[in-house]
Amino acid sequence: MDKTLELCCDLMRRASVTPEDAGCQAQMMMRLEAIGFRCTPLRFGDVDNFWAERGEREGPLLVFAGHTDVVPTGPLEQWHTPPFEPTLQGDTLYGRGAADMKASLAAMVVACEAFVAAHPQHSGRIGFLITSDEEGPAVNGTVRVMEWLSERGEQIDWCLVGEPSSSDQLGDVIKNGRRGSLNATLTVKGTQGHIAYPQLADNPIHRVAPALSALTRETWDQGNQFFPPTSMQISNIHGGTGATNVIPGHIEVVFNFRFSTEVTDVELRQRTEALLDQHGLDYDIHWSLSGQPFLTPRGELVDAAVASIREQLGVEPELSTSGGTSDGRFIAPSGAQVLELGPVNATIHKVNEAVHAPDLPRLAAVYRGILERLLAA
Amino acid sequence: MDKTLELCCDLMRRASVTPEDAGCQAQMMMRLEAIGFRCTPLRFGDVDNFWAERGEREGPLLVFAGHTDVVPTGPLEQWHTPPFEPTLQGDTLYGRGAADMKASLAAMVVACEAFVAAHPQHSGRIGFLITSDEEGPAVNGTVRVMEWLSERGEQIDWCLVGEPSSSDQLGDVIKNGRRGSLNATLTVKGTQGHIAYPQLADNPIHRVAPALSALTRETWDQGNQFFPPTSMQISNIHGGTGATNVIPGHIEVVFNFRFSTEVTDVELRQRTEALLDQHGLDYDIHWSLSGQPFLTPRGELVDAAVASIREQLGVEPELSTSGGTSDGRFIAPSGAQVLELGPVNATIHKVNEAVHAPDLPRLAAVYRGILERLLAA
Repeated sequence: MDKTLELCCDLMRRASVTPEDAGCQAQMMMRLEAIGFRCTPLRFGDVDNFWAERGEREGPLLVFAGHTDVVPTGPLEQWHTPPFEPTLQGDTLYGRGAADMKASLAAMVVACEAFVAAHPQHSGRIGFLITSDEEGPAVNGTVRVMEWLSERGEQIDWCLVGEPSSSDQLGDVIKNGRRGSLNATLTVKGTQGHIAYPQLADNPIHRVAPALSALTRETWDQGNQFFPPTSMQISNIHGGTGATNVIPGHIEVVFNFRFSTEVTDVELRQRTEALLDQHGLDYDIHWSLSGQPFLTPRGELVDAAVASIREQLGVEPELSTSGGTSDGRFIAPSGAQVLELGPVNATIHKVNEAVHAPDLPRLAAVYRGILERLLAA
Repeated sequence: MDKTLELCCDLMRRASVTPEDAGCQAQMMMRLEAIGFRCTPLRFGDVDNFWAERGEREGPLLVFAGHTDVVPTGPLEQWHTPPFEPTLQGDTLYGRGAADMKASLAAMVVACEAFVAAHPQHSGRIGFLITSDEEGPAVNGTVRVMEWLSERGEQIDWCLVGEPSSSDQLGDVIKNGRRGSLNATLTVKGTQGHIAYPQLADNPIHRVAPALSALTRETWDQGNQFFPPTSMQISNIHGGTGATNVIPGHIEVVFNFRFSTEVTDVELRQRTEALLDQHGLDYDIHWSLSGQPFLTPRGELVDAAVASIREQLGVEPELSTSGGTSDGRFIAPSGAQVLELGPVNATIHKVNEAVHAPDLPRLAAVYRGILERLLAA
């Protein structure tokens, strides 16, 4: 059995539903220590993390980043195979975490084993930054490890995040950035009253409707070469007492921006509030910044990844910043070049999550090709 | 103690929270039977009602209509006096049901007692149509009694509803009609999806916002001499899964029209749906007609009421169709002239409900004056 597939199955058998690690990290550290990594378990709150490094402090630092936790299974009766018994049917490996992201974790370890065997005296350092709360609140995971690294004076030069970036086939998309994410909770106030006497009330639903209409029509930016245009989406709206003869006293609206580097969170807040003010609303708004956008333009890391994919897979990867957030948002602000590269993401978070088994050794080969280009002695 | 005040207090001591009657109707029937009324208790479902009549079947039929049930007390700690212990402080009588509508019930009975004493052989008939579910679902009350009367071939000519119609002082407003009431529950459908991939979803909140904005801007009619312009109010709006990263699959909006005789419920439905169609919405809408508008123009009943108020109170009443619905909507379709005339409504449905005690005998005198004008022998 292929080594990457074998390690991936080993990790998948451990039911590491977020924030549980279920022994995945111990298994990874055992393999890494065997090839000369110095491993440091870092438990923060109820979250297991670890840092591992190999090589000399001089020279550049290339870090593999990822998470051992997985999302819950969802309805078990909809799974065709037991979610924590990795099952190979033809070329497809089924199980929770197959694609997000135990295949990548296995490929990272196997890539390092092969690279270290060929280059025991590689230049610079290889690091691992592994957490078990990427799928959860993301408070005691990568954020805390980055703080710990910062206190030690560590500076990551290049970071490969194992998120499943591929769309239709392995390597067709690598994520060289992510949009920012900004949340708002808007409460618009009116005056409650009987529906038969609207002149004695002030209906907050009527007040907010034109403002919401304007917000959804707004063009926030045009995006740029790397980012699609900023998108605003309302996720929740709630107003009303339940009674059909009462005008409610307030309404609550929750919305989110996924924003490009063409605007800032401060600008989005100001423009939103200016628009609400134009509509004469009496409101409170609570803002919460979930992540700044980041971008890794062409450079050593992107060039190495593109070249390795081209060589190993015969594929010309697209650079993209679309999709949801990842822990890359916590690493990029340190100044690191951050790239996400992993298997096809079609089934992630769904029942019957799966990965194309032949992609596992190929992904390990791509990771190794990046190591060869950046740290070969 | 004044007889109307005394009977009002007697009724108020009975805690007839809807749909309970708590013995109010038995007390009224006892008084009415003593002056020659033939009383028929009519219990439908869990609701007590009664019909009473006095006089010959030939000639016109004047009916006093009302309800013995009251709304719940609301927070007891906010009451300055116990809600079911009628309490006189100065000229103000406090207690639940004081204004809505036990004062009117007492005044109707006392007016009939005085009128019958003076005119034992009055012309036509006097009737009472009393329910105990006006404040509740209004299913087993006036609607059912009207059906029962219809089966007996009864036709009401004039109907005085004891609803508290007065605004600042007794008799300043009588209601000679009511707006119609039409309810709608609108469900707008979209496609659920992740907020980071709006292009794969279809946000029903974004779709409905411009349509709601247009609905609230619409002028439905200009009203007329008797009715204010038709009013549309949204009472409830709910959309969202609770998660802040999910675009919901649908949104529900509940709204109500209070409409004049210048539009019909059918026109309102058609115009609403045309507007929703213009906005390209995929929707379901459920309509429920709560009551058609009705109007009692100047005629025998209005003239008698205006003349009686002028004589007894020295007040020139305003004819109005504003405010909420009443059981008059179930009586008017039979062809009856329907008028609402009762005490000042400032405190109804609130804590510390109250009525101006000196208004009680004056209201009885107004009712008697109407009897004198319409049925004196």
